[in-house]
Amino acid sequence: VLVSTRNPLNIGAVARAMSNFGFSKLRLVNAYEPSFREARSAVGASHILQAAEEFTTVADAVGDCSLVVGTTTGRDRDVSQRMESLEAAAPLIRKHLAGGNVAVLFGSEKRGLSNEDLAHCHWLVRIPTREEHPSMNLGQAVAVCLYEIARAENLGRLTTPASETHATSEQLERLTVVLLEALRASDYIKPHTEAATEDNVRRLIRRLTLNADDAELLLGMLRKIARSLHSEEG
Amino acid sequence: VLVSTRNPLNIGAVARAMSNFGFSKLRLVNAYEPSFREARSAVGASHILQAAEEFTTVADAVGDCSLVVGTTTGRDRDVSQRMESLEAAAPLIRKHLAGGNVAVLFGSEKRGLSNEDLAHCHWLVRIPTREEHPSMNLGQAVAVCLYEIARAENLGRLTTPASETHATSEQLERLTVVLLEALRASDYIKPHTEAATEDNVRRLIRRLTLNADDAELLLGMLRKIARSLHSEEG
Repeated sequence: VLVSTRNPLNIGAVARAMSNFGFSKLRLVNAYEPSFREARSAVGASHILQAAEEFTTVADAVGDCSLVVGTTTGRDRDVSQRMESLEAAAPLIRKHLAGGNVAVLFGSEKRGLSNEDLAHCHWLVRIPTREEHPSMNLGQAVAVCLYEIARAENLGRLTTPASETHATSEQLERLTVVLLEALRASDYIKPHTEAATEDNVRRLIRRLTLNADDAELLLGMLRKIARSLHSEEG
Repeated sequence: VLVSTRNPLNIGAVARAMSNFGFSKLRLVNAYEPSFREARSAVGASHILQAAEEFTTVADAVGDCSLVVGTTTGRDRDVSQRMESLEAAAPLIRKHLAGGNVAVLFGSEKRGLSNEDLAHCHWLVRIPTREEHPSMNLGQAVAVCLYEIARAENLGRLTTPASETHATSEQLERLTVVLLEALRASDYIKPHTEAATEDNVRRLIRRLTLNADDAELLLGMLRKIARSLHSEEG
């Protein structure tokens, strides 16, 4: 629920964030700029702007909601009202969504929510911004809140990439041998420290945490280099 | 690090989110609109815009960073590159910050990061948006990422000590350049696939998880090899 929003670009940005994070019901109270449907920054979120509902009072806008949460920087708030950090608020909101509608209220760009608006809220939420600069851009504040509320869903939806095959010791040793060969042909290895250098190169290769594909790729490169060094020697 | 950002309002929004969440070093690569200092939506973030640095290449912009993370919707990504969800990425980034600089790259509004940009990244991060509409507004994407990265700080200061110094991007790029030189001198690189091979080598080097000492060690070896290849050519 956006209350007294002034900038249509912000309304568009809010719609876009809603679409990004899977929210659909946008409500506007006392929107300053009725031409919000033209908001251009709402790439791919026109369905949300089309379906947005307009109200003249906060009471009407939150009428069918069983939890109303107000967003605030916490600076001028009435201490009588419970305030939660966004991290603590998100699981409460998700839990509530299972049994009813939840309204999250955002105030105007200049003044935030008024005391009158806040009176409609069950409790308040604060995004943990720096005390020296707590006030966020409206579109960004909405994006951060929706990201956090959608978080649980993300945890289930995540697609972990197939774990990759690590390079075998055999592959690593082949790499070691070819690199040593190239180093020998380039006079990097001095006779009196040869054994120590071999050791160092072998350890280095093992510290690279190569997967099987990368090991083959690197081996191909080093072979080509070693061959080139040899052919020019001969 | 913002790469090829077009809209100065977005640059301002990014600066504002940085200020909200306590980040200060903004870098711009190939900024489309040089008058970004006028960005008006950066309420209270002018100090960040004033201190923002401009670069012409991604390599320069991330030179002193030892971890480079690219943001992506994951749609057209090269499967060879590791990708983490934002939730999994944030603790890794925080841990790394104890031992070195971390760059988080955001691409242009239209196209995101190019394959060339992505080749400079150690791994990629994806904000868990809906598959049907994954692409976020730039300012909102930055806000969500910074919110998540700052999360630990909200929970309490990190106590993990810096274990080892990671190789910087500058070191990795030097390694890349010398290896490419050796591969060119060995005819590993064919003219018609040169760009693709360059990309692949750049990514490979970044997958090696090198620390600073090992990067220097490997660089010394490759330099010797490259020099040897050249001297025999001439």
